[in-house]
Amino acid sequence: MSWINESGPFNGIVMSSRVRIARNIAGLPFPSIASPEVLQKAVDMVKKSILESNSILSRDFDFVSLRNLSDVEKYILVEKHLISPDLVERAEVAAALINHNEQISIMVNEEDHIRMQCIFPGFQLDKAWELLNRVDDIVEESIEYSFDEHLGYLTSCPTNVGTGMRASVMMHLPGLVATKYINSVLQTISKVGLTARGLYGEGSEALGDIYQISNQITLGPSEEEIISNINIAVRQLMENERMARQALMQSNKLEFEDRIWRSLGILTHARKLSLQEFMSLLSQVRLGVDMGIINGIDVVMLNELMVKCQPAHLQAYIGRETSAEELDVARADRVKNELSKVT
Amino acid sequence: MSWINESGPFNGIVMSSRVRIARNIAGLPFPSIASPEVLQKAVDMVKKSILESNSILSRDFDFVSLRNLSDVEKYILVEKHLISPDLVERAEVAAALINHNEQISIMVNEEDHIRMQCIFPGFQLDKAWELLNRVDDIVEESIEYSFDEHLGYLTSCPTNVGTGMRASVMMHLPGLVATKYINSVLQTISKVGLTARGLYGEGSEALGDIYQISNQITLGPSEEEIISNINIAVRQLMENERMARQALMQSNKLEFEDRIWRSLGILTHARKLSLQEFMSLLSQVRLGVDMGIINGIDVVMLNELMVKCQPAHLQAYIGRETSAEELDVARADRVKNELSKVT
Repeated sequence: MSWINESGPFNGIVMSSRVRIARNIAGLPFPSIASPEVLQKAVDMVKKSILESNSILSRDFDFVSLRNLSDVEKYILVEKHLISPDLVERAEVAAALINHNEQISIMVNEEDHIRMQCIFPGFQLDKAWELLNRVDDIVEESIEYSFDEHLGYLTSCPTNVGTGMRASVMMHLPGLVATKYINSVLQTISKVGLTARGLYGEGSEALGDIYQISNQITLGPSEEEIISNINIAVRQLMENERMARQALMQSNKLEFEDRIWRSLGILTHARKLSLQEFMSLLSQVRLGVDMGIINGIDVVMLNELMVKCQPAHLQAYIGRETSAEELDVARADRVKNELSKVT
Repeated sequence: MSWINESGPFNGIVMSSRVRIARNIAGLPFPSIASPEVLQKAVDMVKKSILESNSILSRDFDFVSLRNLSDVEKYILVEKHLISPDLVERAEVAAALINHNEQISIMVNEEDHIRMQCIFPGFQLDKAWELLNRVDDIVEESIEYSFDEHLGYLTSCPTNVGTGMRASVMMHLPGLVATKYINSVLQTISKVGLTARGLYGEGSEALGDIYQISNQITLGPSEEEIISNINIAVRQLMENERMARQALMQSNKLEFEDRIWRSLGILTHARKLSLQEFMSLLSQVRLGVDMGIINGIDVVMLNELMVKCQPAHLQAYIGRETSAEELDVARADRVKNELSKVT
């Protein structure tokens, strides 16, 4: 049940739900100041904790040493949201454990010794947290975490101390963007301790009208409170987005449908597509599919297409080093092929 | 062999070749100053000259009294280039004789008593003139023209005196427009006594990169000289256009093809298309077809589509009075239907 190629609740607006927790191994210095030997020890401990566990859950994990991957392979994992760009930066000493359906990943030697996450399609933070909790328990069977009775889990960066949790929901908000309500909505979000980022994390633009809503605060509220806060905000955002879409359609149905169909026309006919243009056209098509204007395509297929057309995936598809222009050509080619199967 | 739905020589650049001559009936005042009775007499005389002739050619003409046509029916004839907007202005007293394949039309009581034309697909002014000459002979069997030994044929407006001939070639010049050579090329044209107008005559914009090249002078040169001058200029323009297209493709093939394919994508997916946008997209697609970039469509089909999507044709297609927006919707609908048969 990967977020990329499976359906989930409220998939028309919520693309995925992810929970990650930061943990460190008691008695070892944080990765940024640890020696290569210590970092290797952390890798070995985490690997063992999963691969040698008796739990059913731990059976279908693959261990990946990042230094054995090509750049393209590493960034494919980033584009799937299975590892972070920061982990790639530390590739020489970093590793990851990823389960077969790519729902769970455990990063070793990112900012913290352990960063583990569950990512589910659609809006199901609670389930993601439930599963992640089980993985956390498995690791904790053999590893003692750095933990302070008053502060909670200790982390390399103070912003993660406490629960070490960041829960985030990836939302497709073209209605709020088109009606220009997005900024005021995001301001409201920030007032309740949440933050909005683009598709690929901090600093990344909100390409394709996609926003990741997550908690800023890890210290104070419990894990359940963090998730509950986000759930409330996401429900509100979904409602706002639905209203914005209806308003757009009602104010000028023809204009609305025209824009959506033209986007599909360009997507299926262009000979080159920049990432930005692709994401923007895809956003319109996704909106059209969810609003019942375009039939025969489903949003899951579009999620998959979105990931397949990110730079590293395309690079792998081409199979050799490419210029930016070749990437744009490959993107257009891939979009045309994939969409011609269904349109 | 109508220009709209048949192929002709050099059809990739030359859409149609047309020759028209202005004639007046000796002894009758020009239409602008003639009484209703005189105008009716002119109609009767011309009608009789064709319909009661023994020639094979005259057998398949239909007589149309303009006052019996609805506005839409009249403008459909204008859009097919079978009658002029000026004739519509005089609908109460005007008539036309049009042959079945819509290659020949004879207008009665336009600016002159008789304006007859032949229009052929592609580049074949000589053939059009040859056929028109035969029609002229048929009419002259029973009607004496106003003719002055020194001046030639007398016409209502001095610009038509002499041969009374205007020969024009409709050209598709997207290469010269895109490379911005069009203005200097048209200036050169004007220096040799020719003029360029848009698709629907004087004052009409050059929608869809379409230009009608015709002679400005009717007095002095013979009919054959007029046609020969235009033939020379058109051959030169075709060469210029071919070079411009090659230059565009060679300077950035990807950009060139991308623009063409996107135009097809928008044409086949839009839910509304203004006349101007439609003509501009169609121009790109026509270019793509002629350059071998788009297969499965031929330029004749695009000529037909162009005419079918003009306002009066669309009005007839809808079958009732419509707003401008409804027309744009009908245009998009029609384009999608017609192109979906072939793409």
